Amino acid sequence: MLDIVANDQVTALLDEFGAALEAGDIDRALACFQNDCYWRDLVTFTWNIRTVEGKDEIADMLRSQLGATRPRGWRVAEGEVATTDGGVATAWIEFETEAARGYGLVRIKNGRIWTLLTSMSELKGHEEPLGFGRPLGAKHGAGRNRPSWKEEREAEARELGYTRQPYVVIVGGGQGGIALGARLRQLGVPTIVLEKNDRAGDSWRKRYKSLCLHDPVWYDNLPYLPFPPNWPVFAPKDKIGDWLEMYTKVMELNYWTRTTCKSARYDEATGEWTVVVDRDGEQVVLRPKQLVLATGMSGKPNLPRFPGMDRFKGDQHHSSQHPGPDAYRGKRAVVIGSNNSAHDICAALLENDVDVTMVQRSPTHIVRSDTLMEVGLGALYSEKAVRSGMTTEKADLIFASLPYRILHEFQIPLYDRMREIDADFYAGLEKAGFRLDWGDDGSGLFMKYLRRGSGYYIDVGACQLIIDGQIKLAHGNVREITEDSVILEDGTELPADLIVYATGYGSMNGWAADLIGRDVADKVGKCWGLGSDTTKDPGPWVGEQRNMWKPTKQEGLWFHGGNLHQSRHYSQFLSLQLKARMEGIPTPVYGIPETHHLG
Amino acid sequence: MLDIVANDQVTALLDEFGAALEAGDIDRALACFQNDCYWRDLVTFTWNIRTVEGKDEIADMLRSQLGATRPRGWRVAEGEVATTDGGVATAWIEFETEAARGYGLVRIKNGRIWTLLTSMSELKGHEEPLGFGRPLGAKHGAGRNRPSWKEEREAEARELGYTRQPYVVIVGGGQGGIALGARLRQLGVPTIVLEKNDRAGDSWRKRYKSLCLHDPVWYDNLPYLPFPPNWPVFAPKDKIGDWLEMYTKVMELNYWTRTTCKSARYDEATGEWTVVVDRDGEQVVLRPKQLVLATGMSGKPNLPRFPGMDRFKGDQHHSSQHPGPDAYRGKRAVVIGSNNSAHDICAALLENDVDVTMVQRSPTHIVRSDTLMEVGLGALYSEKAVRSGMTTEKADLIFASLPYRILHEFQIPLYDRMREIDADFYAGLEKAGFRLDWGDDGSGLFMKYLRRGSGYYIDVGACQLIIDGQIKLAHGNVREITEDSVILEDGTELPADLIVYATGYGSMNGWAADLIGRDVADKVGKCWGLGSDTTKDPGPWVGEQRNMWKPTKQEGLWFHGGNLHQSRHYSQFLSLQLKARMEGIPTPVYGIPETHHLG
Repeated sequence: MLDIVANDQVTALLDEFGAALEAGDIDRALACFQNDCYWRDLVTFTWNIRTVEGKDEIADMLRSQLGATRPRGWRVAEGEVATTDGGVATAWIEFETEAARGYGLVRIKNGRIWTLLTSMSELKGHEEPLGFGRPLGAKHGAGRNRPSWKEEREAEARELGYTRQPYVVIVGGGQGGIALGARLRQLGVPTIVLEKNDRAGDSWRKRYKSLCLHDPVWYDNLPYLPFPPNWPVFAPKDKIGDWLEMYTKVMELNYWTRTTCKSARYDEATGEWTVVVDRDGEQVVLRPKQLVLATGMSGKPNLPRFPGMDRFKGDQHHSSQHPGPDAYRGKRAVVIGSNNSAHDICAALLENDVDVTMVQRSPTHIVRSDTLMEVGLGALYSEKAVRSGMTTEKADLIFASLPYRILHEFQIPLYDRMREIDADFYAGLEKAGFRLDWGDDGSGLFMKYLRRGSGYYIDVGACQLIIDGQIKLAHGNVREITEDSVILEDGTELPADLIVYATGYGSMNGWAADLIGRDVADKVGKCWGLGSDTTKDPGPWVGEQRNMWKPTKQEGLWFHGGNLHQSRHYSQFLSLQLKARMEGIPTPVYGIPETHHLG
Repeated sequence: MLDIVANDQVTALLDEFGAALEAGDIDRALACFQNDCYWRDLVTFTWNIRTVEGKDEIADMLRSQLGATRPRGWRVAEGEVATTDGGVATAWIEFETEAARGYGLVRIKNGRIWTLLTSMSELKGHEEPLGFGRPLGAKHGAGRNRPSWKEEREAEARELGYTRQPYVVIVGGGQGGIALGARLRQLGVPTIVLEKNDRAGDSWRKRYKSLCLHDPVWYDNLPYLPFPPNWPVFAPKDKIGDWLEMYTKVMELNYWTRTTCKSARYDEATGEWTVVVDRDGEQVVLRPKQLVLATGMSGKPNLPRFPGMDRFKGDQHHSSQHPGPDAYRGKRAVVIGSNNSAHDICAALLENDVDVTMVQRSPTHIVRSDTLMEVGLGALYSEKAVRSGMTTEKADLIFASLPYRILHEFQIPLYDRMREIDADFYAGLEKAGFRLDWGDDGSGLFMKYLRRGSGYYIDVGACQLIIDGQIKLAHGNVREITEDSVILEDGTELPADLIVYATGYGSMNGWAADLIGRDVADKVGKCWGLGSDTTKDPGPWVGEQRNMWKPTKQEGLWFHGGNLHQSRHYSQFLSLQLKARMEGIPTPVYGIPETHHLG
């Protein structure tokens, strides 16, 4: 509830905190925190995406960064009032640093800071031309031989990458590259986005026919231009493809289609990349200062190497290459894997009269879409949330404000509830032989996504087909492939005209290995994962998604990606980091973690 | 200011008004109005767009319509509180009729209704799938051989107009046809939009190079998908073209490009049109129930017939055909006319080193863009209005709520103020010989637009070029054209390599004459204008834009158009009228005026 008394307390604490920081008195600042405390910073203090945990880490960060940051003006954000709930006071806050304006969220227990989120809104003197600051468009007054908007756009398209070099090259024109491209455009950072397909959106269009987003519309908005109110909850892939295509045009991106990146090499001396690209048959050499790989955190297929794959006489392909069911009517399909793609593909095959067997190799986390929407996302991303005044921007910041170290504690009760709500459903799945999993600590889907980016299916119908026995189920690893079947480790033989390897994707730094070299890929290390020491997310703890949206151990190399939510939200911070570098604003980076895993 | 006491008074008055209407007691309902009163109805009571003025007209309308309308549930709208200002209480209201839900605005003086706006929000049982009702998109659960979204769209594109007939055909795919098409799509009314150009948006792209919108972005939003916050205040024509193209796709219109309507004939017996179209070389015969002409209220060029035009050796064309200045560098141009297009074209020619003379044939109303934005539109359509909570929907309704009979009284003081603010500017223009005009009654631009759709220029820079003498000025009507000059009535000869006829546009019913026949065009009569008995808007008074967005004297024939604001707002009411007819909902129309002018 809104709470004027709490508001005064928060204001007093922020005043004290601000005064301590302005005085450079770190001990005094630390006294504003309780012992159990977290500070997540999105590039305001650390020029990094970084959570410092506990007073010692906060002290270390401040010792390193406070002098250059010069924070000031801490206050409850304009138009906001603190709220209290269960002994925790929460407030939206505003502040400034030497370089930027910041926005954040603070949670206070017993008069001391428990969690603090600080995020950069804008760089001073480099505000985006939006709202009151939007461009005029028409050029009022007279000027001889003024080019029109169209002529200026055409000239830019002609020159950029040829007679004039972009500051940033983004490899990959999916949702990640597009969202980042839009923000950089707004910030006036000359950027080229490279996309291998014919049209923006093709990376969605080319996937299996039945694919729809598994995340709901409220979670999926791109920056600046939210979906209209008639947009479907779960958009079909081709519709999202069309949206991305129009967005790319409306946002005036320099978006090169039919273009593949062949190689990239960094010159440490000049601080410049040499990026060789094939643009629709023409070789073009680009020389940007910054290179962003936005090739998809699920972009590099993991194709397994099973004995006998070469002798298989039917069709076999990775799920990312699966064309849909049309060609397989009346045939027998074996789908290796039991996560999202496997379920979607099995259901679509079955609906088109294909005999389908799913091979479950390890337990899988299942949540029903409706239940997930209601219990898992409803408070932040739903029509109800929108009607009660929740904006995408606020939802993203609230989402970002829970430290990853303790996020699972908030998640576990939600999944306990889902398990209860859908008890019959889960019983049915288990009865059908499906092996269920809720994450190592029962924290469910979102933690799995953050930790390993795999291991789940958001059920939109395939589960019932498994419960009913229509999609057949087999278990275990694959021993070998024969001319016309899949043989499992226990000897089970599954006759097959089609094998789909729904076996997931590798780490994004694999792209760095392909384009730049193994040395750079290894220097940078694995992308994604928190170091939670759970399945497929080995420790040590790093507390943030490895290498994503922030400086890496390779100067000038950045990774951008994730789902639409992450592409939207984290593109804000990556774009500000790039803009600051272009403008020569000092960006002292705090705490790039050691590389622990090669990918 | 918000006013709880006023709110109680409004509620009491609405209760009384509602009770009187439910009792069918027209005298008692009339007692709720003051003598000086206006009721503007947007299709809830009248199935028409109609203002009844004074108690006698209100009584006549109620006697005709009350029985079928069965209004009820009058109340101050949810979440709203009445406000008072200068003795007038204003409140947003909600109500229902037998068929629909309504929203409106009431103004009360001395406890009695002064102005009442009633507008239809939605038809009961035919609500748009928006927000909570948006489509799911993904098809959860399993179904054999289910088509994907893309396959369904492709099937629709294949079938509609061939094996399945549209209910509505819209001739003209500019902003009007597109906005209406989007609303009809939302309402599930099968519709084909016919567009002669290659791409949606070409009607903007093909105009002169320097063209930008003269109305600001806040005034120009299309339904469902407002412009993003980085959209320019005055969008360049090609950018608007791109937006319309993407909107058409995102909104899933059945939009036939490279298609011209050759003829249309209505069969009164079957209530069906036979519309012959050329679709990219193929003749297709469409049989819709409803035909909408959305060919542009400024769509049918008025090309004057001056003696000697046939012997002119240079280039001559109507302003709508003007390609821009590039080919005329170093040449001499004469532009006949002194309204928006004339000014834009003169400025662009001058900026490209063309020798330009503007021929002013009659006084012209000039307002500076900045001043117009500030004084004329700022309260409803501006960044400031948005920040203070004004939505496009509310702004449109407030705009619609001032009866046209008295609108000039509200406008005159605004233009008096503009004249004062820009006194030096106007003095400069007059000194340069430019003849100024403020409308017959000094009510300025918007009334001119409503009355005659012409006679003004919103200054974005050309005026200074006239003040400075860079754009030369001549006066009077054209006597004749020679091989290489324009001769005015006073004998002045203006040498010319290029003549641009910026001579405006004819009435939209001219399109009906071309496509359907002169008899139908004459039966329907002139479109646009209020009958204000001012210049180019002959009486008698009809009180609404003639024939626009409402039933005409030709069954099944409708006119839609206007600027982006009108295309957006009135498409709501036209689409509801068409939907109601498709669903067989009774739509007793009140008060189609007599035809007074042939066009």
